[in-house]
Amino acid sequence: MTQNTAEKTPVTLLGLGAMGTALARTWLAAGHPLTVWNRTPARAAALAAEGARVADSAAAAVAANPLIIVCLLGDASVEEVLAGTDLARRDLVNLTTSTPARARARAEWARQRGARYLDGGIMAVPPMIGLPEAGGYVFYSGSPELFERHRETLAVPAGTTYVGEDASFAALHDVALLSAMYGMFAGAAHAFALIRKEDIDPAALAPLLADWLVAMAPAVHQTADQLRSGDYTKGVVSSLAMQVAGTPTFLNTAEQQGVSPELLSPYFELMRRRLAEGSGEEDLTGVIDLLVR
Amino acid sequence: MTQNTAEKTPVTLLGLGAMGTALARTWLAAGHPLTVWNRTPARAAALAAEGARVADSAAAAVAANPLIIVCLLGDASVEEVLAGTDLARRDLVNLTTSTPARARARAEWARQRGARYLDGGIMAVPPMIGLPEAGGYVFYSGSPELFERHRETLAVPAGTTYVGEDASFAALHDVALLSAMYGMFAGAAHAFALIRKEDIDPAALAPLLADWLVAMAPAVHQTADQLRSGDYTKGVVSSLAMQVAGTPTFLNTAEQQGVSPELLSPYFELMRRRLAEGSGEEDLTGVIDLLVR
Repeated sequence: MTQNTAEKTPVTLLGLGAMGTALARTWLAAGHPLTVWNRTPARAAALAAEGARVADSAAAAVAANPLIIVCLLGDASVEEVLAGTDLARRDLVNLTTSTPARARARAEWARQRGARYLDGGIMAVPPMIGLPEAGGYVFYSGSPELFERHRETLAVPAGTTYVGEDASFAALHDVALLSAMYGMFAGAAHAFALIRKEDIDPAALAPLLADWLVAMAPAVHQTADQLRSGDYTKGVVSSLAMQVAGTPTFLNTAEQQGVSPELLSPYFELMRRRLAEGSGEEDLTGVIDLLVR
Repeated sequence: MTQNTAEKTPVTLLGLGAMGTALARTWLAAGHPLTVWNRTPARAAALAAEGARVADSAAAAVAANPLIIVCLLGDASVEEVLAGTDLARRDLVNLTTSTPARARARAEWARQRGARYLDGGIMAVPPMIGLPEAGGYVFYSGSPELFERHRETLAVPAGTTYVGEDASFAALHDVALLSAMYGMFAGAAHAFALIRKEDIDPAALAPLLADWLVAMAPAVHQTADQLRSGDYTKGVVSSLAMQVAGTPTFLNTAEQQGVSPELLSPYFELMRRRLAEGSGEEDLTGVIDLLVR
């Protein structure tokens, strides 16, 4: 690394787990002066060999630079690690995984200590960090001034998507997307289970499954249109009534293949409940209303 | 329609619901002589004006051409409609939605009556028929001779994917892909529910959600590799133990947003069960084994 670091924003990074370490390496590689701190110092030593300065304490690390990135195990660790530091006039970017409520509370906590606060939700696993072409990125919410000021520095490890001043929104977007992903994985698990006892190669099913899911994912645009307008019959192709009528085929097939329907039946049950409310001409969107208390 | 129909294979089509009618129009447009029959004749009359011959009975329709396409409401209708027809030396293509077990039984039933049999599972809604660029297609399984002989004719309304001699495999693939889709829709419903009470436009979430699902769908390739090898730790990035440790964030967020976790918790529960079996270093693939009895 012989790059000119004179004009790059110095960064302090607290927390060198797999994600923190991956983030650190991208700033070092891009020529940002980097100060790191980790509770157990072994990982910091490895980064020191790559050019990072290692702080003796979290307080010293926070004192070293105006821009502080925190990537710890959870919100409790954030409170604990930052407790003895002076956050006044610091730009605090918290990439620690958290719930929206805790992110909002942490933003207020930081404000009371004189810091600007930005919360981040990382939509990537550590191997994707520093590889923008891999599609990973980070949701940010909170101080728009902080985000604008450090936009370039924040864009070094991964793409950035700012989703609002409410500091809880990054975590909420993060959880929403990952929740949807788990639903997709649950559906794919059911699909693979259906062929488990048949002479069908899972590697032959996989591309058909991937292509089909990719083709169907854009259906969420129509869902969004319907939620906005409140008209869940807008653009319907297969009505709720038709789809509920088709559910026995799915449940009978699962039974015939010896597969538990437990990952499918809760959604079908909500479809039936919505149909029973007289919404047979609608799309599947009404299920969302049944989920919200 | 003034196309030369001299060399196009004549087709008989039984069943003129929304799907049957969409199929019929593509064969007419492509210049195939088409004989149709429907229990209620009104829909047949509309197609007659477009060039179809209308048979007086199912038996007459089956007698008219060697290639018979059936697209009825369900397997019971297929049995009823074909009961009084002579299927000897007919090529019977059954596009009626069915379970794999019923498709297999229908293939044997057709064989006993002297017909070659191909079962189809349509991965499209009627508006996608005749628009190959829309990505819809039909799974076929059963007689490879029938499929080869009529491959071009079958490719007129939609793409074709042959998945094996076992006549049940088309329905099984159909159900597997649609089951996975419902899982994805369930996950997306949970995601939209999470933002329902917040000042977040569903139409702003939708593209993020669609892109994320598209980016994550190829994970099924790794699942397939793991299923083939039996080694569920192969290529793991986020271990089952790490992912189970993250589930409280999802459940707490749902609770904070007033959203029922019923669409997510069954998958998380299976993850926990698999972890309890000592599989913490694995990927999520072991969940599939828990689904199969």
